[in-house]
Amino acid sequence: MLGVVMHAPGDVRVEEREDPKIQYPTDAVIRVAAACICGSDLWPYRGADDVHDAPMGHEYVGVVEEVGDEVRNVKPGDFVVGSFFASDNTCEICRAGYQSRCVHAEPMGALGTQAQRARVPLADGTLVATPGMPDADLVPSLLAASDVLGTGWFGAVAAEAGPGKTVAVVGDGAVGLHAVLAAKQLGAERIVIFSRHADRQRLAAEFGATDVIAERGDEGVAKLKDLTGGLGAHSVVEAVGTQESMMQAIRATRPGGHVGYVGVAHDVALPGGELFFSGVHLHGGPAPVRRFLPELIQLIWDRTIDPGKVFDRTLPLADAAEGYRAMDERRAIKVLLTV
Amino acid sequence: MLGVVMHAPGDVRVEEREDPKIQYPTDAVIRVAAACICGSDLWPYRGADDVHDAPMGHEYVGVVEEVGDEVRNVKPGDFVVGSFFASDNTCEICRAGYQSRCVHAEPMGALGTQAQRARVPLADGTLVATPGMPDADLVPSLLAASDVLGTGWFGAVAAEAGPGKTVAVVGDGAVGLHAVLAAKQLGAERIVIFSRHADRQRLAAEFGATDVIAERGDEGVAKLKDLTGGLGAHSVVEAVGTQESMMQAIRATRPGGHVGYVGVAHDVALPGGELFFSGVHLHGGPAPVRRFLPELIQLIWDRTIDPGKVFDRTLPLADAAEGYRAMDERRAIKVLLTV
Repeated sequence: MLGVVMHAPGDVRVEEREDPKIQYPTDAVIRVAAACICGSDLWPYRGADDVHDAPMGHEYVGVVEEVGDEVRNVKPGDFVVGSFFASDNTCEICRAGYQSRCVHAEPMGALGTQAQRARVPLADGTLVATPGMPDADLVPSLLAASDVLGTGWFGAVAAEAGPGKTVAVVGDGAVGLHAVLAAKQLGAERIVIFSRHADRQRLAAEFGATDVIAERGDEGVAKLKDLTGGLGAHSVVEAVGTQESMMQAIRATRPGGHVGYVGVAHDVALPGGELFFSGVHLHGGPAPVRRFLPELIQLIWDRTIDPGKVFDRTLPLADAAEGYRAMDERRAIKVLLTV
Repeated sequence: MLGVVMHAPGDVRVEEREDPKIQYPTDAVIRVAAACICGSDLWPYRGADDVHDAPMGHEYVGVVEEVGDEVRNVKPGDFVVGSFFASDNTCEICRAGYQSRCVHAEPMGALGTQAQRARVPLADGTLVATPGMPDADLVPSLLAASDVLGTGWFGAVAAEAGPGKTVAVVGDGAVGLHAVLAAKQLGAERIVIFSRHADRQRLAAEFGATDVIAERGDEGVAKLKDLTGGLGAHSVVEAVGTQESMMQAIRATRPGGHVGYVGVAHDVALPGGELFFSGVHLHGGPAPVRRFLPELIQLIWDRTIDPGKVFDRTLPLADAAEGYRAMDERRAIKVLLTV
């Protein structure tokens, strides 16, 4: 089969890879219908993470082709959505809603879903079947649920977005934009996006943002305080993962407020004294997307939300290298790969 | 009047200070009945915080002597307990339960309550009157409510201690011991104290600890994981404030669990990547003791809890210097100063 391999930073190729097979009785093999390129794939692409000949991709939707003997919840022919971590969904950590830290968690990124087929471990716990075969126009949104929507949603939940709250979002990539969408669905009163890109500002407004702040860092924080009686936001979602964005998120939050951080932290060190006196709640990490999948699939199926709008470029799998380039150069917010 | 002044690290003297007066119509002046020395007073005593000729003390109980024209909730003759931050208790931050970050907050430490009298700003919001004049044996417990009990309690609340939970406490000083007491009152199923001091272990057991771990750092974390099916505690209270204790607390917490940190952070830098993948909730800071005072005073008044047991040394105010030495040298857990 064909699949994407990153041989080194900047060196992405679509090439022949071995067809996945059932290895454990809890596995499924799916025929990928669509995959995509994640903001986090840009870390190794830009050399910030080590990478050598790695199969790429951890977001996926597709049709089940084959299941192992112990799989009960999905069957060949089902259209399924899964998270970027395989999880058993039965251990104590999963039951508490932290499936991305399941005691048996396996990162799908190691298997590589930017490919024609993929093996999904722990299929019963990992995959959620849609109510039927989706219309083609729903596929991008279902794919978004697999990671960026689920991650933005978790950021908003971790930040305790809700009625009466002012929610601010640091980061206007796909995850940040979906955090806006989530905050809106969760009933937030006011939603502020930090962004200086007109196309992203427009999409944020479509998703429910009420205010835009173009300034970054402490200047951005000062603008947000102007909007909130000097106090800061109740809830701030951090969706970048740098030192600057984390500090901006913490400083933008009022004492007792909540920071939900979902940007994969790179070279971040939080100063203990400032954090202590900030009095904020801090929660985040790799999103337990599986927790939210049934609800998100239903919202998409009912056409209540349209998260697939973040895909502003669609390419065939064979052109994945151009997809990486477009995202790296910010010519695209998020690239969908048809398979 | 007499009051404690720290002239430099290690140089504590009891000397004549100017009598406090009503300066604002929202002030009260109290005659201090008892004050005490805080673990945080040891930071400047040991040279870790700057100090020059500073009046000391931020914990206090006493009798109201005089109130300003706008004070309505307390009157001369009332026995009162207050927090280490004065707060208006009416602003948006106070109403959300974060009185230590009140928009008008004033640190009582700057006024110095290790003294015969003290001015209390924002008296209506800061002071809570007891139901009557307390029996002498209740005074230590009421004094504890002013900071160490309220702080340990906040740590346990921030860590979401509750029924069915395993709670671990890092730090066996007065605050850590009170976090044990709080976890017990909040209904925790299992309470683990990290301690290697026999006297503190005994008091922890009296307060409700079910298990003791003598090891520290990653060894302590490994022992805790042995006790919790490899997962870590649901709730961990950090009551020290060092890099080692913070990392121990984070690592002792299961994914999705809660760290409540109340040790004043000194030279702490939290590694973003490890924090991200830990998946814990982190909340803490200067405890909003005022939030809990009415409940804590009632529990003490009803003799349901006896937090005053942490005072293992009582000295007259005049001997404050010996009190500092005893705590610095760990000859005392916590020193009460009678005034």
